[in-house]
Amino acid sequence: MGWMMTRRRCQSRRGASPFPTTCVTRVVQNDDMDQRISLITLGVRDLVRARAFYEALGWRSGTTNDDVVFFQAGGMVLALWDRTLLAEDSGVSDAGGWGGVTLAYNVASPRLVDDTLTDAARAGATIARAGAPTFWGGYSGVFVDPDGHPWEVAHNPDWPLDQEGRVHLP
Amino acid sequence: MGWMMTRRRCQSRRGASPFPTTCVTRVVQNDDMDQRISLITLGVRDLVRARAFYEALGWRSGTTNDDVVFFQAGGMVLALWDRTLLAEDSGVSDAGGWGGVTLAYNVASPRLVDDTLTDAARAGATIARAGAPTFWGGYSGVFVDPDGHPWEVAHNPDWPLDQEGRVHLP
Repeated sequence: MGWMMTRRRCQSRRGASPFPTTCVTRVVQNDDMDQRISLITLGVRDLVRARAFYEALGWRSGTTNDDVVFFQAGGMVLALWDRTLLAEDSGVSDAGGWGGVTLAYNVASPRLVDDTLTDAARAGATIARAGAPTFWGGYSGVFVDPDGHPWEVAHNPDWPLDQEGRVHLP
Repeated sequence: MGWMMTRRRCQSRRGASPFPTTCVTRVVQNDDMDQRISLITLGVRDLVRARAFYEALGWRSGTTNDDVVFFQAGGMVLALWDRTLLAEDSGVSDAGGWGGVTLAYNVASPRLVDDTLTDAARAGATIARAGAPTFWGGYSGVFVDPDGHPWEVAHNPDWPLDQEGRVHLP
């Protein structure tokens, strides 16, 4: 479903019309799946606790109700939702344990890695790996949120961050 | 670590200098963690199989080597990496099973939900939930990738997609 720009279609008004030529850009979808993720939902055991944790990190929720919390995260959304309901909704069996997904948060320096880990621990996270130089030439550590979701906090000198904090592969 | 723009700092050259006044915008980081995710790493059992699956969906990898595959996904990166190494790197115990994370891919219509599910099944995914109207007023289904990572494919009429496919909370 990739988004594809088509050539600009111009509608010109003929004759003595005072209106200027109008051009519109048409956007159509082609057949490929876009390389993007819209939403990450973290299954949580206690929504109040989970929300308090992310808010303690400085995040502010957007639309929210008693059942779910949404955080705008750049061009995507991070959601917190009851783990049992999410498993059912996702059509998977919840056997417990870590499921093979790690999120990462990149920052501009090793010092900011340590600062973020400190803030996360203060907010209730477990530090699974203290900040230290990595085998790939950067510096990182890992905190695990109150529901067991690991976040690597990393400084990667080879992945520049733009002014909005977005990463760009070299 | 929120990014914050400070006031423009202008350096003016005095006297008869022919150079114009130079203004720079300073960007500093404040103390809050940004509301963004830099990287999602999916732990996989067979990197060749996992890469082939995402490439069959139309994704193209950026920097890559024999050990890891990176896909630029908007302003973030999706990575595929050996599950055992990722667990160790993340400081978590890999007890197996689903770990409470579901990714979602939003599209512009119910028909595109069904098309994406069909494409995913053709690429080797399991369909955990067929496309159908949802309790929240949209339309969605779920495919599970070859390593057990669930992706909801959704049309949410209340979450508009911009021209680059990014979602925006209302």
